[in-house]
Amino acid sequence: MENQIYELQFAMDTFYFLVCGALVMWMAAGFSMLEAGLVRAKNTTEILTKNVALFAIACIMYLVCGYAIMYDGSFFLSGIADFDLTSMLADSAEAGFDGDSVYASASDFFFQVVFVATAMSIVSGSVAERMKLWAFLIFAVVMTGFIYPMEGSWTWNGADVFGMFNLGDLGFSDFAGSGIVHLAGASAALAGVLLLGARKGKYGANGEVNAIPGANLPLATLGTFILWMGWFGFNGGSVLKLSDGASANAVAMVFLNTNAAAAGGAVAALVLSRILFGKADLTMLLNGALAGLVAITAEPSTPTALQATLFGMAGGLLVVFSILALDKLKIDDPVGAISVHGTCGILGLLLVPLTNGDASFVGQIVGGLTIFVWVFVCSLIVWAILKAVMGIRVSEEDEYTGMDIADCGMEAYPEFVNK
Amino acid sequence: MENQIYELQFAMDTFYFLVCGALVMWMAAGFSMLEAGLVRAKNTTEILTKNVALFAIACIMYLVCGYAIMYDGSFFLSGIADFDLTSMLADSAEAGFDGDSVYASASDFFFQVVFVATAMSIVSGSVAERMKLWAFLIFAVVMTGFIYPMEGSWTWNGADVFGMFNLGDLGFSDFAGSGIVHLAGASAALAGVLLLGARKGKYGANGEVNAIPGANLPLATLGTFILWMGWFGFNGGSVLKLSDGASANAVAMVFLNTNAAAAGGAVAALVLSRILFGKADLTMLLNGALAGLVAITAEPSTPTALQATLFGMAGGLLVVFSILALDKLKIDDPVGAISVHGTCGILGLLLVPLTNGDASFVGQIVGGLTIFVWVFVCSLIVWAILKAVMGIRVSEEDEYTGMDIADCGMEAYPEFVNK
Amino acid sequence: MENQIYELQFAMDTFYFLVCGALVMWMAAGFSMLEAGLVRAKNTTEILTKNVALFAIACIMYLVCGYAIMYDGSFFLSGIADFDLTSMLADSAEAGFDGDSVYASASDFFFQVVFVATAMSIVSGSVAERMKLWAFLIFAVVMTGFIYPMEGSWTWNGADVFGMFNLGDLGFSDFAGSGIVHLAGASAALAGVLLLGARKGKYGANGEVNAIPGANLPLATLGTFILWMGWFGFNGGSVLKLSDGASANAVAMVFLNTNAAAAGGAVAALVLSRILFGKADLTMLLNGALAGLVAITAEPSTPTALQATLFGMAGGLLVVFSILALDKLKIDDPVGAISVHGTCGILGLLLVPLTNGDASFVGQIVGGLTIFVWVFVCSLIVWAILKAVMGIRVSEEDEYTGMDIADCGMEAYPEFVNK
Repeated sequence: MENQIYELQFAMDTFYFLVCGALVMWMAAGFSMLEAGLVRAKNTTEILTKNVALFAIACIMYLVCGYAIMYDGSFFLSGIADFDLTSMLADSAEAGFDGDSVYASASDFFFQVVFVATAMSIVSGSVAERMKLWAFLIFAVVMTGFIYPMEGSWTWNGADVFGMFNLGDLGFSDFAGSGIVHLAGASAALAGVLLLGARKGKYGANGEVNAIPGANLPLATLGTFILWMGWFGFNGGSVLKLSDGASANAVAMVFLNTNAAAAGGAVAALVLSRILFGKADLTMLLNGALAGLVAITAEPSTPTALQATLFGMAGGLLVVFSILALDKLKIDDPVGAISVHGTCGILGLLLVPLTNGDASFVGQIVGGLTIFVWVFVCSLIVWAILKAVMGIRVSEEDEYTGMDIADCGMEAYPEFVNK
Repeated sequence: MENQIYELQFAMDTFYFLVCGALVMWMAAGFSMLEAGLVRAKNTTEILTKNVALFAIACIMYLVCGYAIMYDGSFFLSGIADFDLTSMLADSAEAGFDGDSVYASASDFFFQVVFVATAMSIVSGSVAERMKLWAFLIFAVVMTGFIYPMEGSWTWNGADVFGMFNLGDLGFSDFAGSGIVHLAGASAALAGVLLLGARKGKYGANGEVNAIPGANLPLATLGTFILWMGWFGFNGGSVLKLSDGASANAVAMVFLNTNAAAAGGAVAALVLSRILFGKADLTMLLNGALAGLVAITAEPSTPTALQATLFGMAGGLLVVFSILALDKLKIDDPVGAISVHGTCGILGLLLVPLTNGDASFVGQIVGGLTIFVWVFVCSLIVWAILKAVMGIRVSEEDEYTGMDIADCGMEAYPEFVNK
Repeated sequence: MENQIYELQFAMDTFYFLVCGALVMWMAAGFSMLEAGLVRAKNTTEILTKNVALFAIACIMYLVCGYAIMYDGSFFLSGIADFDLTSMLADSAEAGFDGDSVYASASDFFFQVVFVATAMSIVSGSVAERMKLWAFLIFAVVMTGFIYPMEGSWTWNGADVFGMFNLGDLGFSDFAGSGIVHLAGASAALAGVLLLGARKGKYGANGEVNAIPGANLPLATLGTFILWMGWFGFNGGSVLKLSDGASANAVAMVFLNTNAAAAGGAVAALVLSRILFGKADLTMLLNGALAGLVAITAEPSTPTALQATLFGMAGGLLVVFSILALDKLKIDDPVGAISVHGTCGILGLLLVPLTNGDASFVGQIVGGLTIFVWVFVCSLIVWAILKAVMGIRVSEEDEYTGMDIADCGMEAYPEFVNK
């Protein structure tokens, strides 16, 4: 009968991983809709193609080599696992677990793989409207198959960074990936944007910043709601266990705090944009909610609900200023992804020691720097090679007429756009 | 080992709440898309802004004071709960439960908070295309922080209504909130609409009712599907327990009946609109499905599947006549929310005694009246104050040119609309 | 205490069914968005109406008679079930189960009913832009109430085909319905398309195939992501049990493989379309992902992850050639549903014996033929009767001006389309 109870725990934790993983997979739709809503109509088919393709590439590359690099184990040639409770409990005890942290290994892979895709989804928005489709997809292969798994191995798998130092020992803690996923994605995006340059017409000769409005704000709003919903899986699943009382309490608190931070970020960005611009800026409201989510992701379990709301608000305020600052620096990020995931990813890391005594500021700073430097430098090299070999920026003519026709041969809204 | 079983139950019921809560949160996206699809293009950014912001405000206000008013307990300053089975079972027994109705209190909060947001989402559609953004958001603060929690305390928390009478004692029963959530939202909406007046051009001088078509029907359809899906969490989670055989049977029947009622409502409204108008009216079809859902919400567990289908059909028929009647009365409700959630919310309450012997018609009528009078009167007062202080209706010019530019400074579809 | 464990298993398996069922229900939204995105603007309201209405009809007809035909049991007059563990275990043992395959029967109905709707959703896309609304809806009544349940009884319920032969005995195996659901839907679609003929202007007098671009590709992309997500419920729920170690491992592997196949199909179709057409064809990419999903559906549990990826890739390649071939044959399928669900449904069936020793090629061929012949012939008869009695094709004038005004009296995008 005791074994029956273990099997129930195993089944429950497996299902919990799978449900959370499905929610994170759903975030791919969220990024797609958000980005498709925030670009111009003429570049919409192309950004959709990038988003679907990068998700597929991430799933394949993480299966082929990414998971193996990150966790020293591969699923590529594996079929369905046998259920052997005795050896599973022994393995678990050997690995230092308490004897019941067991779930189907395939469910762990499924949960992990959708995180890789999230990191990559962040990039597509920042380089939108001017990055060549196939250069981007080749970058996706390297990012999801190598760059992300390497830094994932140093963090969630606890390996030493090039045998030199151990982030965990330094007090680095990143619960669900403000740094490991979001900052990583933003670092790759920043490298791409720096090599790409701004969209034609974004910055005027006299320092003007020209707004380039997104073509479809309901899509962008839908995308934000999808991301908000999917984030419950992203953070909630990162407790990694559900089936005992303490874990269930933790999962519930993570859901509550994730929601509170998103709400705080949304309200803060809305009020700030009203004060700064005199208008209730919907795109800032959406980015504020996402910023709150990124800010809480590094530690959604230890804050109180009040703290989570305040942390989210901090994210919502920061993202507005970050977007304005990047525009001042002529770093052209059509959807604000570097600010949402990068700037607020750093904020998230730095907030952890305030509520989690196991984390240290030194650890968070070293960890954040490690992630940033590794991903940024690697990405810069890959983008630079791509630029030299095949070019990463579309021709001026294609940029003017739109990437949809040039890259995909079809318009996203052939009957709607006023010509 | 017995404790391990309790922990598993605790974990399962917690997870069930969280999954259902995430589905209800998803309904916020449904309302957003439904409303964004049914208004004109020029008011779309504004309705999206209202929907995202009201959800965020609801989450914060319910955290700050709403839950405390409704259930005499607050999560605002709480962090993650300790898992102490012994005291939890003692508390539960003291509260009259059978000793195993236990789950993470944070999961209960998460499930409850998304209901508040649902009530508020109903309002935004009815006052669309003419209500000032900031007046609406201030109303949302009061509604979600005070008006809704008060009536919630009299119903789901069983408190006496102003110490005068107890709705439960009168035989009032509202399983998942046909009255407590949907009628409440519609009552607040009605108060707002009466003070606001109709949109310019909706009603002609000679009694004509002019159709004002929605700009994006795929969005409205998507919104309806999202609401249909989310309703499984709304009703299914309201069983409040999953982890024993009888509860699991109840949850399953609730899913089945919720789906059957939506299907019945959709088919009935489609056929009726074909008979009345000679056309298969998509917006009536969508509202028919939603009407069926509202009608079953007060009691989705005791009807047979046949009864649930018929109750849904009754909702689908009623909503069409209600929409026509409100237009006769010149009560301008752009999305039909008062009919769907108000008229059919009352229907839902009145259907309960047909299948649930614990409910009485007297209790349902008194309960429905209590909810309506409380919410309507409070709302009328708040809207009236807002009208006096800051105005609740946009200027004629802003109404003509669209609220998107006036309130948000950006168009929803800058490249599409024929000017 | 042993009974408590059984109750927990019962509750867990019930919840697993309900969550998976909700995900499959969500696929109805996916088909709606996919089809609404791929038709022209003038036929969008009509295709949305068809999709919502067919889902509602499927739910009602399967309740009224479909489930009874398929599984010899009806839920139509049933209310909530009593939980009687003793008799349940006895029934289960009698039926040849191992004594613990028990879950709420209502959850089984809920899971099954959404499959019927999926089969019917496949049809609407293929006959889009020219099939009369009410003829289609009457067909939906027959398809979901009789045609599908009959072939379902021969396959998943194991009944003899007209008392002549038993597909299970021949080694037929179709885990989640590549044949039973997808090929069935495509067979009904093909019959309809053959009687309907192609859209005006699709095929030129000299054999030209004219592209008729879809009006809203973000919607089509969203629909594909929804289907991808919903498919986790479709395949994952088809394990039919979660609550022991072996079942949980199977469910996890099914999620992993379903995702891998979709990813493989997407990448293969993208690369192939680049090679064939010189462009990254988004609609082929989307159909490739769906083709991969259909191809793995007949057996997602026994392949390794590598095999699942390759099977998905095979689907992604095949669907492109199938779409080109059907156009050569002047079989006009606006969304490619016959290729995705029919051609790749057959592929899925034929792949099963490669990894599942219990299936035979003979069984798969006989099973596939049985499904195709039954559904195709029945559908042809029903469509032919409808054609004779009321006509199935809209008038040339209505086809030219669009079905939205003719059938539904409202445009989908009244403010957007350039006239």
